[in-house]
Amino acid sequence: MSPATPYLRVDTARLRANVARVADQAAAAGVSLRPHAKTHKCAEVARLQLEAGAVGLTVATIGEAEVFAEHGVEDLFIAYPLWLTDDAVRRLRGLSDRVDLAIGVDSTESAARAGALLEGSGIAVLVEVDSGQHRSGVAPEAAGTVAAAAAEAGAPVRGVFTFPGHSYAPGAGTDAAAEEARALRSAVESFRTVGLEPDVVSGGSTPTLAASLSDPGAGLLTELRPGVYVFGDAQQWELGSTRPEDVALSCRATVVSHAGGRLVLDAGSKALGADRAPWATGWGRLPAYPDARVVQLSEHHAVVDLHGAALPALGSRVDLVPNHVCNAVNLADVLWADDTAAWHVVARGHNC
Amino acid sequence: MSPATPYLRVDTARLRANVARVADQAAAAGVSLRPHAKTHKCAEVARLQLEAGAVGLTVATIGEAEVFAEHGVEDLFIAYPLWLTDDAVRRLRGLSDRVDLAIGVDSTESAARAGALLEGSGIAVLVEVDSGQHRSGVAPEAAGTVAAAAAEAGAPVRGVFTFPGHSYAPGAGTDAAAEEARALRSAVESFRTVGLEPDVVSGGSTPTLAASLSDPGAGLLTELRPGVYVFGDAQQWELGSTRPEDVALSCRATVVSHAGGRLVLDAGSKALGADRAPWATGWGRLPAYPDARVVQLSEHHAVVDLHGAALPALGSRVDLVPNHVCNAVNLADVLWADDTAAWHVVARGHNC
Repeated sequence: MSPATPYLRVDTARLRANVARVADQAAAAGVSLRPHAKTHKCAEVARLQLEAGAVGLTVATIGEAEVFAEHGVEDLFIAYPLWLTDDAVRRLRGLSDRVDLAIGVDSTESAARAGALLEGSGIAVLVEVDSGQHRSGVAPEAAGTVAAAAAEAGAPVRGVFTFPGHSYAPGAGTDAAAEEARALRSAVESFRTVGLEPDVVSGGSTPTLAASLSDPGAGLLTELRPGVYVFGDAQQWELGSTRPEDVALSCRATVVSHAGGRLVLDAGSKALGADRAPWATGWGRLPAYPDARVVQLSEHHAVVDLHGAALPALGSRVDLVPNHVCNAVNLADVLWADDTAAWHVVARGHNC
Repeated sequence: MSPATPYLRVDTARLRANVARVADQAAAAGVSLRPHAKTHKCAEVARLQLEAGAVGLTVATIGEAEVFAEHGVEDLFIAYPLWLTDDAVRRLRGLSDRVDLAIGVDSTESAARAGALLEGSGIAVLVEVDSGQHRSGVAPEAAGTVAAAAAEAGAPVRGVFTFPGHSYAPGAGTDAAAEEARALRSAVESFRTVGLEPDVVSGGSTPTLAASLSDPGAGLLTELRPGVYVFGDAQQWELGSTRPEDVALSCRATVVSHAGGRLVLDAGSKALGADRAPWATGWGRLPAYPDARVVQLSEHHAVVDLHGAALPALGSRVDLVPNHVCNAVNLADVLWADDTAAWHVVARGHNC
């Protein structure tokens, strides 16, 4: 019996192809791959990535690091400017006994704190710089000052990282990759002014991946941290960074109503996530109906304008690709691989 | 030790006041209250609502009904046009042995199916009508036809329901309540043309609550199904349907960065949900900084423009009210009541 709808399904052939393609491209470009596991939160996908040559995983929280360490991952980078409470320090030290661990810092204060509180743990720091997203991260030219503060406080400084999240807009990928490269070059120069040389220069996102892999030297990149590439989603589809035929995760839904002559599906924001970028054309896409748009989304309903196509019958099943796969996965306890195997979303909800 | 951030916290004094106030208003207006439990998904909140006089609970899915039945709730309405698969029928019949159960139908096809497949179970149906949201539900004047199809197929027809979801826009509450009343009156007349009289005429939403309670007779309403009123959220705050000082749930977050001179908190869309209505002023509100706006939200970061207020120190804690509390709660395994008691979100993720 197939699962009750709505449920998330993984096409494992596409998933494997996505993992292999990007691993091969990174190897050919001479860049390490450290995929962001917040996208999938699954031990099965992590294993595929590591078997394909990933040097380790990126995670966003200590909780995610703990889960992947329990599942045998030995090299983890928490790409986040953690604030080190007593409890965070205790958990990080516990992890560092088992895994090669690094964390982000983005101020002299957090750098000095990391040095003081993590002393002797072997936990490394990477300085986060802002390459144009204007979220976290110091200005690139201040990277050396933060690195020096960490080194002075005794923290092993591994390098510098950024997330070019401003790549998430139509046509923005190439420019964002170029800005990322400029920011990282400036950060490396800033490191050198304080007598430090970064071992790791880390960047990457799925929308900038093609640009980064075609010319990684331009930005001195040694490592890429894309997440979404494993599955793709409607955002990447609409940005042109994933081909629809490569999208490996969708939400299977049931037609529950034809109200108003439109298609109403039983998948809403509690299955898909409520993400909708200003440039998105709707709340997800339907592979079987490329012209259709999800024109209304509530918690348990998606209302679809089929753009003139015939309405599928009540009770039939239709696949929807969520806008932002990371948030859809984080709503599910299980992903159904090829509709048969249950992959547990082991790091779901591990937000701290 | 207080929980690690980000976490959801409930102010139980405010929660109890919200539950009591609306229960008292409904009693004074002579309208039954059947709160929607999708907002809180917690046995503790359900108990408060039932103790205050709610006639039962509303839920959105069979899974939510199963969870609340396990927690002793004896009267449940699944306010959704369920498509009855074999598995759904088996689960509904299992539930009907233990609880008074009703479901929604919104087509002659689903009505006939309910009659045929649920025969002898005692499960009642309510006909859903569209009162202006244009999501699910038949046109009000077609309600009698659907009711007759259900009755002819042997389903006990309990009445009619609607959700005036078009109330979710600034200034729309009063008009939406009036449209809801007109739609329900038309539906009742449509029932009478086929010789049926609805026992239950059910509507309501949090933004229309004040209007419905002040004049329930206008729409023949016998029952209201608000959900969000128990906690409130930033949407209700900005719509004016919840006072900021009545908001009973917030997300406690830590200041992790001062990048760019702005406040960066460790609560993102994986803790708050990604909901943002076109009219919302940001991705949540900060009770301690009424003029501040969350100008950027990603999975683990909220970037806040404090509108000139002094930046709280790195490591300090700040409370954020999510835009849409139902989706924030659905991301959490636990709500922290008064920062001390763990209320398990027992129906989290029960989407089918």
